[in-house]
Amino acid sequence: MITATNVKNGVNVDQLVETIETVQQNPELAKFEFRSKNNWIDGGHCVSSIKSFYGVGQEDTTRQETFTMECDHPNVLLGNDKAPTPPEVVLHALGSCLTAAMTYHAAAHGIDIEGAESTLEGGIDLQGFLGLDPEIRKGFNGITFKLKVKSDATVEQLENLAKFSPVFDMISNPTPVSIEIVK
Amino acid sequence: MITATNVKNGVNVDQLVETIETVQQNPELAKFEFRSKNNWIDGGHCVSSIKSFYGVGQEDTTRQETFTMECDHPNVLLGNDKAPTPPEVVLHALGSCLTAAMTYHAAAHGIDIEGAESTLEGGIDLQGFLGLDPEIRKGFNGITFKLKVKSDATVEQLENLAKFSPVFDMISNPTPVSIEIVK
Repeated sequence: MITATNVKNGVNVDQLVETIETVQQNPELAKFEFRSKNNWIDGGHCVSSIKSFYGVGQEDTTRQETFTMECDHPNVLLGNDKAPTPPEVVLHALGSCLTAAMTYHAAAHGIDIEGAESTLEGGIDLQGFLGLDPEIRKGFNGITFKLKVKSDATVEQLENLAKFSPVFDMISNPTPVSIEIVK
Repeated sequence: MITATNVKNGVNVDQLVETIETVQQNPELAKFEFRSKNNWIDGGHCVSSIKSFYGVGQEDTTRQETFTMECDHPNVLLGNDKAPTPPEVVLHALGSCLTAAMTYHAAAHGIDIEGAESTLEGGIDLQGFLGLDPEIRKGFNGITFKLKVKSDATVEQLENLAKFSPVFDMISNPTPVSIEIVK
């Protein structure tokens, strides 16, 4: 007997359902820890290396590649413009996460996504970063995510699916960050 | 007369002081808007393009390169592991931003930074993302940033400088995200 793999939106639905059932039986398997190493180059130029993570009850042994990503700043912000700024990288992570959350949860609900593209904009007043006015926040005062989707689902359904995004939660709600500095 | 450029930690301090003075005279110049375009490939695999931004009172005309960045998911999260996950990308942005904020503000205060490297860890319980328990948050329950710095400044000074980071603010405090979906 030949069994066709049940794939929707590029997501293996059989594997997704199996994952959900496995986690329901053993919630410890859902605990993940993600990591990044960051090295300062100079000025506002840094490079991160990303490989190891913990999940499914063990240290991962499957990822072969170490991903490297850089951040820099444009000339008007005294950088050499070799890479996007950290706030732009946040927009990349947020857009990717909202989109992936929508496609995964759509797959689980039998909803087809035929195409998705989005733009993200974040406004920031650098008087906050520069320390010129303590009343002005240092980060984005708000982010707009505009998503164009090709799907039969309603806009409301799609929005509810996208909102399962972990990065959307991290940005829109407080996430504690502990800072430990050693010399 | 030959004038040496005053550079500290890779930051042009003369230009930094001039920037601060200019913004104090005309706060409108500190208003920036950063942007990203995101295209879904399939499953949890997306690519972002980052180039245009608004700042210093106008649309930027200096950035030549369009930066592209990808997100994917490892095999255990039903992806093809072609790029880091969105939460890992957040760690990259956060580590780079905390480090850059420290080096910029150190330069402004005449503090030398001779080296800086860090590790970031974020714990996440995927029962939240999977929708299995509404009490469990979808994002990181917390992030640890461990920074090793070579500098004569005190740990407390360095921590206060790092905390000017815009991404640190965005993650540790709520940032409103508006979602607009069109079909």
